[in-house]
Amino acid sequence: MTAPLTIYGDPGSGNCLKVKWVAAHLGIPTVWRDVDVPGGGTRTPEFLALNPAGRVPIVVRPDGAVLSESNAIILYLAEGSSLVPEAPFDRARMLQWMFWEQYSHEPYIAVRRYQLHYLKRAPEDLDPRLAERGGDALRLMAATLARSAFMAGDALTLADVALVAYTRMAHEGGFDLAAYPAVGAWVGRVESGLGIGAYAGPA
Amino acid sequence: MTAPLTIYGDPGSGNCLKVKWVAAHLGIPTVWRDVDVPGGGTRTPEFLALNPAGRVPIVVRPDGAVLSESNAIILYLAEGSSLVPEAPFDRARMLQWMFWEQYSHEPYIAVRRYQLHYLKRAPEDLDPRLAERGGDALRLMAATLARSAFMAGDALTLADVALVAYTRMAHEGGFDLAAYPAVGAWVGRVESGLGIGAYAGPA
Repeated sequence: MTAPLTIYGDPGSGNCLKVKWVAAHLGIPTVWRDVDVPGGGTRTPEFLALNPAGRVPIVVRPDGAVLSESNAIILYLAEGSSLVPEAPFDRARMLQWMFWEQYSHEPYIAVRRYQLHYLKRAPEDLDPRLAERGGDALRLMAATLARSAFMAGDALTLADVALVAYTRMAHEGGFDLAAYPAVGAWVGRVESGLGIGAYAGPA
Repeated sequence: MTAPLTIYGDPGSGNCLKVKWVAAHLGIPTVWRDVDVPGGGTRTPEFLALNPAGRVPIVVRPDGAVLSESNAIILYLAEGSSLVPEAPFDRARMLQWMFWEQYSHEPYIAVRRYQLHYLKRAPEDLDPRLAERGGDALRLMAATLARSAFMAGDALTLADVALVAYTRMAHEGGFDLAAYPAVGAWVGRVESGLGIGAYAGPA
């Protein structure tokens, strides 16, 4: 990859930041194009022509090929790097947490943050399952991190990248990481390993 | 893998059948253990000790290691086979659809089927977003299948395995595949390629 990839993303979206972090960490040249999700930037005809699913992030190659789904993109970027284990079962464990992130973590923690922080809904108007299942997700992470330094074992992998994206912003969704000290400590380890600094609020 | 893997699954669950099909297609020896999800089989202390997330499928290796998340499991089983493209971008495209399946297809099509078919809820009592977003998913599949024979290109991959699991049962969720003829034809191609025969209702 010599000519840069173009990342279309919203800087307030954890899913988009995953892609930015991995590319920067691995020294992959990219160009960032802002898409304002709360402002409707994923619903324009121009954006829908790139991704009919109407979601960011996407990456566009110099030849025009488009790839979507944050976790598929970071796997594409990081294959062969230290962020992807070589041993088949370790690799499978990383993938397990990446699928779990999109099914059992993001739909509760990121969605509750979006509704509170961007849509300015009142907590009592939200679906109570968001808080319940987001709490379940944080409890399972805490139990996992009681046994290993990172989510898929002893080394930083894409599982951590995928999961830290919204976990470090969880307070904006009304989740208090002080209740899960192993998770809070892990957030710091991942931020340090990626060289991204502590979360200081949406861009 | 000489000693068999044990698959814990519910034969009515598309997510579980994915694992069974891939193992059978690739000649990987497995033992199947039934878990009755509607009957609470994923909530017993014995099952939660294997998978604290309380979901099937899981596979357990002879050494006791447990792997969860259907799409991570089939990637573990099929790595190096014809079901996983070698070219990096083709592989990424397959992964894109596998993540999309778990985020944008299963939570609507499989969940609506579960509520109608297993919980026996009335259609008018369901969250209307299930039908809307399930329809969106089928439309995006139809548009993709108007351009290529399979979801990630011209060959059968794990993207098709992941997506056929609940698409072939979509009528039980109230979705009529007759409205998406390209999708219906693709279901037949995937069933034929996997050697699994047409869907004849839950086991």
